[in-house]
Amino acid sequence: MLLEKRGVEIVGAIERRPELIGCDLGEVLGLGRRLGVEVSGDAESVLSRARADVVLQATGSFVHEVESDILLAVRHGCNLISTAEEMACPQATNPDAAARLDRAAREAGVSVFGTGINPGFVLDLLIIALTAACRRVDSVTARRVNDLSPFGPTVMRSQGVGTTPEEFDRGVAAGAIVGHVGFQQSIRLIADALGWRLDRVEERREPIISKVARRAPHATVEPGMVAGCNHTGIGYADGRAVITLLHPQQIQPQAEGVLTGDYIEIEGDPPVRFSGSPEIPGGIGTMAVVVNYIPLVVAARPGLLTLNDLPVPAARMGDMTLSRRGLAS
Amino acid sequence: MLLEKRGVEIVGAIERRPELIGCDLGEVLGLGRRLGVEVSGDAESVLSRARADVVLQATGSFVHEVESDILLAVRHGCNLISTAEEMACPQATNPDAAARLDRAAREAGVSVFGTGINPGFVLDLLIIALTAACRRVDSVTARRVNDLSPFGPTVMRSQGVGTTPEEFDRGVAAGAIVGHVGFQQSIRLIADALGWRLDRVEERREPIISKVARRAPHATVEPGMVAGCNHTGIGYADGRAVITLLHPQQIQPQAEGVLTGDYIEIEGDPPVRFSGSPEIPGGIGTMAVVVNYIPLVVAARPGLLTLNDLPVPAARMGDMTLSRRGLAS
Repeated sequence: MLLEKRGVEIVGAIERRPELIGCDLGEVLGLGRRLGVEVSGDAESVLSRARADVVLQATGSFVHEVESDILLAVRHGCNLISTAEEMACPQATNPDAAARLDRAAREAGVSVFGTGINPGFVLDLLIIALTAACRRVDSVTARRVNDLSPFGPTVMRSQGVGTTPEEFDRGVAAGAIVGHVGFQQSIRLIADALGWRLDRVEERREPIISKVARRAPHATVEPGMVAGCNHTGIGYADGRAVITLLHPQQIQPQAEGVLTGDYIEIEGDPPVRFSGSPEIPGGIGTMAVVVNYIPLVVAARPGLLTLNDLPVPAARMGDMTLSRRGLAS
Repeated sequence: MLLEKRGVEIVGAIERRPELIGCDLGEVLGLGRRLGVEVSGDAESVLSRARADVVLQATGSFVHEVESDILLAVRHGCNLISTAEEMACPQATNPDAAARLDRAAREAGVSVFGTGINPGFVLDLLIIALTAACRRVDSVTARRVNDLSPFGPTVMRSQGVGTTPEEFDRGVAAGAIVGHVGFQQSIRLIADALGWRLDRVEERREPIISKVARRAPHATVEPGMVAGCNHTGIGYADGRAVITLLHPQQIQPQAEGVLTGDYIEIEGDPPVRFSGSPEIPGGIGTMAVVVNYIPLVVAARPGLLTLNDLPVPAARMGDMTLSRRGLAS
């Protein structure tokens, strides 16, 4: 996607898989041509040499996995956009790390921002934007129903696909079946935007027990076995569920007549319902959101930012170096 | 809506209808209680005395109707939000006035912003935000299908409701039947956000000729007569229609089985379809969008702003004086 954009030059590539280090980036991407960018395992040296305006980080899901790499980029004067789910709002789960990242970014005069399709877009940004048409919001309920069939064995394991119900419960208890990472972040972002103070955020992970046989390249589910994880996040204010986010993830939802899609319902004055089917695809969607935020993050004030701090994002079809009107001033 | 919000004090009310001047605002609003705010016909005196953080302007549709009032508020050091449709992007139709407003606002250190449900939200902001999930956008098509039945005689006339097809054509030619005001603005806002340079923007106003009898409080339509205006705006880039906005407005669309709603289709990679039915209501939606933008406009940099310059708006359920994290810095 970056190669398709005007005004973008890829000045470095950092990787940890030893078999890729030393290769040309064009080979790694299977382009059939060299890009003149050698994939390196030495982040420090790439960051010193490349003097990048922005680093895109797509490595882990959790703040504790990505913080030290982010701080390294920040110390080299780079803005950074991370796909780590927890980085969409590290204030929600890692307030100490958030304070460290904010301080380091301000000192270096750069911006640090986490985004992706979810958290970062479907179950937070779209909901927040839709509430702007409401005089009063009583509660928000949104569902993202997707199909895990194309994913690999890591996703099958983390969602419990192909387990028995008993294995699923043990996996959840042991932390091996995690479901979706991002409810804490999305719920906090919505609450912050609307000005709700939440008492607590609850998460529930329940097995989607299949009535029929389902097959995917990396999973087999017999009737009575688990086709995926029905994961729910609920934010409470004054003891009332005000934000309910549902994200059932499974292989072959159509096998039981389940239509994939993104569904947003806002109760209030007026009520607002918006939906799209099928769901906005997660892989390409995350890539797009990250790249489309580049001009906004490069132009933004220094510090740790969330989507509530930045202008409305958009597909960037023109020159990525054109700062949007007014942003630079 | 302002009276329901914490952190808002109404410090003045300016009106031109002579019969309302001198009344208490609470009486004018039919609250059955006084608010201690006298409705005045003397804008200069109210603005001098009130020292408002923000002025909400809901008077005309066109820049030429509202510019002098905006400049008056700006010279008194007030931020201003206008519901004038052309103020959503005065750069599109009134570049000279836009330059004057921008200069005056910067000199006074205040922000001037136009918004509403449409333009300002449904056919621009929501579309722009949805494109952020796209790697590539080829074209955008969106429809807002609404029901004019509740509106008064002015709207019936400006949309040609109850005319014959010949009267409709003459009314369009004479500028008496205007249809929707806002296509030029919405199309420009989308093009600016995506970085498209448009060759031209075309508008088409066609009569919605009813097959059946339709009745509304302020209009009667017999079969063969006009139930409303099917207004389309099309933005072209390199000779290709890249932005098509459709806004058929009529009384009793359900009489011919037409479902009201807001429908957005983005062709690209990935394609994105999002819709809601019925449509987000226009009157309350405009009021909500205006009020919900207050904290963002008060915290924004000085100048003439569009929705592309400001953070994602949201319903403000908490204290309106709380600036959102990071905005003030």
